Amino acid sequence: MIRHVVLFRWRAGFDPGDWLERVRALPERIPQLRSLDAGPDVLGADRSWDAAVVADFDRLDDVAAYTDHPAHRPLIAISGAGAEQIASVDFEIPDHPEDQP
Amino acid sequence: MIRHVVLFRWRAGFDPGDWLERVRALPERIPQLRSLDAGPDVLGADRSWDAAVVADFDRLDDVAAYTDHPAHRPLIAISGAGAEQIASVDFEIPDHPEDQP
Repeated sequence: MIRHVVLFRWRAGFDPGDWLERVRALPERIPQLRSLDAGPDVLGADRSWDAAVVADFDRLDDVAAYTDHPAHRPLIAISGAGAEQIASVDFEIPDHPEDQP
Repeated sequence: MIRHVVLFRWRAGFDPGDWLERVRALPERIPQLRSLDAGPDVLGADRSWDAAVVADFDRLDDVAAYTDHPAHRPLIAISGAGAEQIASVDFEIPDHPEDQP
């Protein structure tokens, strides 16, 4: 499986509004999403950014389908406009426990 | 639960060696770790950094215990020296499926 991790550092004064709720609702609309967790930072350390999305897929091609999905596109526009910096890492993880033989 | 996400952008020429294998072995030594996945980026997009660690805990205090644990300290020294930039977000996630009533 592939874990797609994205961290967002918002511009000063940017309010993401319902962006996170809409991101959390994506699994209902994008079948390639095996799981998705998203939320605002609650620690506030020096190196902390503002929000994270962690989404799991069966394969790397599914990440592209997710990125280009019409339900996702408007949310990319919002975060793209509101972010000072966005960083991502896509890495391999073992199958989810419910998928293991 | 708390999901602790850390992304690393290595300095040019830095070789993390067995750092990732040693990070993946931490659950055997740090009881507060409910799960940990870590790996190198496999996508190589413009905004991609080099490696990610995603670790789940029951509560925020456990993240501090993990950070200060003697098995983790030497790995922080390695990544701290090798990273051009480190970003993290700690956010709330629902209980793991195996914990839900």
